Amino acid sequence: MNERNERTVFFLSDQTGVTAETLGHSLLTQFSGQVFRQVTLPFIDNEDKARDAVVRINAAGDSDNRRPIVFSTLVQDEVRAIVRQANGLHLDIFDEFLAPLEAEFEEAPTHEPGRAHGVSDIEAYMKRIEATNFALANDDGGIGRSYDVADVILIGVSRSGKTPTCLYLALTYGVYAANYPLTDDEFESGRLPDFLLEQKHKLFGLTIGPDRLRHIRKERRAVGRYSSAQQVRFEIRETEKLFRRYAIPYVDTTEFSVEEIASRILDSTGVERRVRVS
Amino acid sequence: MNERNERTVFFLSDQTGVTAETLGHSLLTQFSGQVFRQVTLPFIDNEDKARDAVVRINAAGDSDNRRPIVFSTLVQDEVRAIVRQANGLHLDIFDEFLAPLEAEFEEAPTHEPGRAHGVSDIEAYMKRIEATNFALANDDGGIGRSYDVADVILIGVSRSGKTPTCLYLALTYGVYAANYPLTDDEFESGRLPDFLLEQKHKLFGLTIGPDRLRHIRKERRAVGRYSSAQQVRFEIRETEKLFRRYAIPYVDTTEFSVEEIASRILDSTGVERRVRVS
Repeated sequence: MNERNERTVFFLSDQTGVTAETLGHSLLTQFSGQVFRQVTLPFIDNEDKARDAVVRINAAGDSDNRRPIVFSTLVQDEVRAIVRQANGLHLDIFDEFLAPLEAEFEEAPTHEPGRAHGVSDIEAYMKRIEATNFALANDDGGIGRSYDVADVILIGVSRSGKTPTCLYLALTYGVYAANYPLTDDEFESGRLPDFLLEQKHKLFGLTIGPDRLRHIRKERRAVGRYSSAQQVRFEIRETEKLFRRYAIPYVDTTEFSVEEIASRILDSTGVERRVRVS
Repeated sequence: MNERNERTVFFLSDQTGVTAETLGHSLLTQFSGQVFRQVTLPFIDNEDKARDAVVRINAAGDSDNRRPIVFSTLVQDEVRAIVRQANGLHLDIFDEFLAPLEAEFEEAPTHEPGRAHGVSDIEAYMKRIEATNFALANDDGGIGRSYDVADVILIGVSRSGKTPTCLYLALTYGVYAANYPLTDDEFESGRLPDFLLEQKHKLFGLTIGPDRLRHIRKERRAVGRYSSAQQVRFEIRETEKLFRRYAIPYVDTTEFSVEEIASRILDSTGVERRVRVS
């Protein structure tokens, strides 16, 4: 029937489903003995869609021969009531957490869907777009650089995670993040260029373990000096020397996801988020 | 004392705090009568840091003259027990949801922090980085374009949200998203170029309300044809004509955040996420 021993997990939302997914993942990673098949059903914002979701949940349960887990963030009581009829283990954040907040605030919740994710929040949208444009214009030491308005300037060797981290900081938090690649110029002189030192308080370093860096670089260029063990070790050693010489705070990205690198940078530098997660 | 009637909300995590923030925001937006000051305390992964957090929570409560709300995702029982001692309304997802999952799976949770956010999940990291590089190389109809390997190709006028949406799809879901700007070339001929039509099944349109588009464009260039009411209306009208002519699915981005646009594209096209939210 279900040889892979799979269990289907549903993420239901009247919005994008990102909150339900984030919640569910935090919990599911606590159980290493299970095999999950994940299905996101976003925009369940009326009773018809709720009934369709019930059909899908029940079908998955029949096929798996065990009931699905249903993580949901459904603000409309009538939608939630329909979904509840599906045969599954239901975990809904509004079911659990709305009542204590209502009591604390002595205010009734609006029960309006679509408030969680910046609908028509044009100001936050603009800030994130501007920050993204800034990150693109100031990527990889680009000539359009305007470090004077940067919130933070990441430095590190090629493929240490600078570009995705800058884009993530911009898209998620509206932070103006530039990045500058450390290359032979810096390693041979043993110093950072003046235009960086003028912004020294904004500099933040990324380093990375040599094995991980080789692995990443080989995806780009399988052979040659760029991904050789010797070159990679040399670059990392010289980079960390520069960080120490100038007392630049840095993080080792080897074990971290882009989210974690970004979060550690904000935590370490005290740079303020220009928008909050919505 | 607290004239602005503020209440401090804490987001505590042994990881980045993104899960706690996401959860909290979904719930807080249900209460429009409150004014919140938000503080994220990430990486609370030992008892010392937990005690520091308690001090900060209690200080905020004293200053506000009302107890803070504390959203948390703390997997270690001993850390959570310390945080609980702070005077606040405590809402922790592990407190609420771990027990029912444990019963369902008949498996004890690991209680290990750091599992939720892709630590050492090199495969997912690589996929997201590769997708981000793809988005950068295939942004704005760039000459490096390789639409044959794209999952989706966004088309729309300048500033309709193509670039941030592509980057978000890449960073969050590892989806290969290219974008191509519609300009006078397409509007005058009334047709799309052949290299797009060859990938017609991958095309997805973005449109936007004229007022919103003008507002966004004026941030870039305050005067001139680019942000004139006439030009903006012309471009949008011609764009939607092209979408209808070729039966290209599209979304109006006027009211949506980047997350929502991305989510609607995945929902509408059925494009599979290459990585899941972690």
